[in-house]
Amino acid sequence: MTHAREMLDTYPGTTAMDASALVECIEACFDCAQSCSACADACLGEEEVSHLRRCITMCLNCSDVCATTGRIISRQTDFEPAMAKAALQACAEACRLCGEECEHHAREMNMEHCRVCAEACRRCEEACNRALAAVGG
Amino acid sequence: MTHAREMLDTYPGTTAMDASALVECIEACFDCAQSCSACADACLGEEEVSHLRRCITMCLNCSDVCATTGRIISRQTDFEPAMAKAALQACAEACRLCGEECEHHAREMNMEHCRVCAEACRRCEEACNRALAAVGG
Amino acid sequence: MTHAREMLDTYPGTTAMDASALVECIEACFDCAQSCSACADACLGEEEVSHLRRCITMCLNCSDVCATTGRIISRQTDFEPAMAKAALQACAEACRLCGEECEHHAREMNMEHCRVCAEACRRCEEACNRALAAVGG
Amino acid sequence: MTHAREMLDTYPGTTAMDASALVECIEACFDCAQSCSACADACLGEEEVSHLRRCITMCLNCSDVCATTGRIISRQTDFEPAMAKAALQACAEACRLCGEECEHHAREMNMEHCRVCAEACRRCEEACNRALAAVGG
Repeated sequence: MTHAREMLDTYPGTTAMDASALVECIEACFDCAQSCSACADACLGEEEVSHLRRCITMCLNCSDVCATTGRIISRQTDFEPAMAKAALQACAEACRLCGEECEHHAREMNMEHCRVCAEACRRCEEACNRALAAVGG
Repeated sequence: MTHAREMLDTYPGTTAMDASALVECIEACFDCAQSCSACADACLGEEEVSHLRRCITMCLNCSDVCATTGRIISRQTDFEPAMAKAALQACAEACRLCGEECEHHAREMNMEHCRVCAEACRRCEEACNRALAAVGG
Repeated sequence: MTHAREMLDTYPGTTAMDASALVECIEACFDCAQSCSACADACLGEEEVSHLRRCITMCLNCSDVCATTGRIISRQTDFEPAMAKAALQACAEACRLCGEECEHHAREMNMEHCRVCAEACRRCEEACNRALAAVGG
Repeated sequence: MTHAREMLDTYPGTTAMDASALVECIEACFDCAQSCSACADACLGEEEVSHLRRCITMCLNCSDVCATTGRIISRQTDFEPAMAKAALQACAEACRLCGEECEHHAREMNMEHCRVCAEACRRCEEACNRALAAVGG
């Protein structure tokens, strides 16, 4: 479905960390960037939008951080571990905050888009933490 | 692998166009945003980087346009066809220009990352054109 | 306040179009990207958020398109007029749609953040149109 | 030149921290996002591009982190200090790394675009650190 693995396998050099952890994290970041943009939009489309303000803000923030982190770890030329760590830490935090908020609405208000988005956030948070371990963070 | 379909299926309203064309285009945009960031980086890592300036610029531009278009068409609340059309047209053009450049380096210089990226660009260009037809553009 | 002019003046080559039109457009794009993100957020903070759904979507879309266009026209190396035109056209359209929506809320609901944002949108739309003329679009 | 101050002054609620520190940081983030995109491009346009690989990667990363951080701190509705801190920390680090690299090329290779970009990076790093102090980070 995505070309992330093939792009990494054809990189003309050695990659900065374990390729599987890297691909998993890149794909999770781009997927979570999409899910969070879509969840902010779905919340905005709900009748109860005034109860979903925090969820919308968390989703917008998380989408931006994931998109940026997905790009940073896609870059292998002169890969800088300090930069990767800072981005991955911010991303894991954004996913944790957004995932908790979405999880809450999935449970309490039965919001299915929040359930799906919480899943994307959790997967991305875990992938960021694994990538942090791989990069020595 | 991605949650785009599930996010669309749980949207609390009707979607603006055929869901399959929409999901295909959303996924192609995010995938192409990643491939183009990675290809700009892979070109930068090549010994012959001075011959790859145009490819790097095309990839950076295409990555930005794809990321923006993937977000815009992910938003279904008060979907505005005129906005979607303008974004999809710019995206199809960015993918065409970048795909041609990458294709050229794949053929002439045997660059495998350019071959993979050209594939992502072509898929995204086609998906944008199908979405344009679906949105009446 | 910004370094856009200095960055362009120190570019190691000739710029693709009239430097003043270019700097004006780059600054207007980044400013409008910020204003639209802030206006989407201010609308979300309003009690009447349920009446502001379209404004939030227009602002989110416009912010993304402006950020992308500001980057594309900042890139002078192997500047591709066809890419610049496609981006500038999408950006002018995003600013027109968002500016009209914000203008409406400024007038009808006396929303001051929408008045400021409409001003940023109009300035950016005009700057994009001038840049389009300069690039021969 | 920018509408950041007016957007904050018309926000329908109380802002999360000292408005001056916030506006300064928002403007510095968007300015640095632009400078870094332009500096990556200017480096790519240099004859000696093969010596500037690290500078290009640092600039691309810094541009992405600054754009994301500028948006996150522009959002005042349900402002989450933990999110702001994580983003500001990543941004200060990105600016520090990119500023040092650009400073080096400004001094050693007399690159004027790197000198201007280093200035934007330093201003943004300082603004992020002041905003971190204001948010209690």
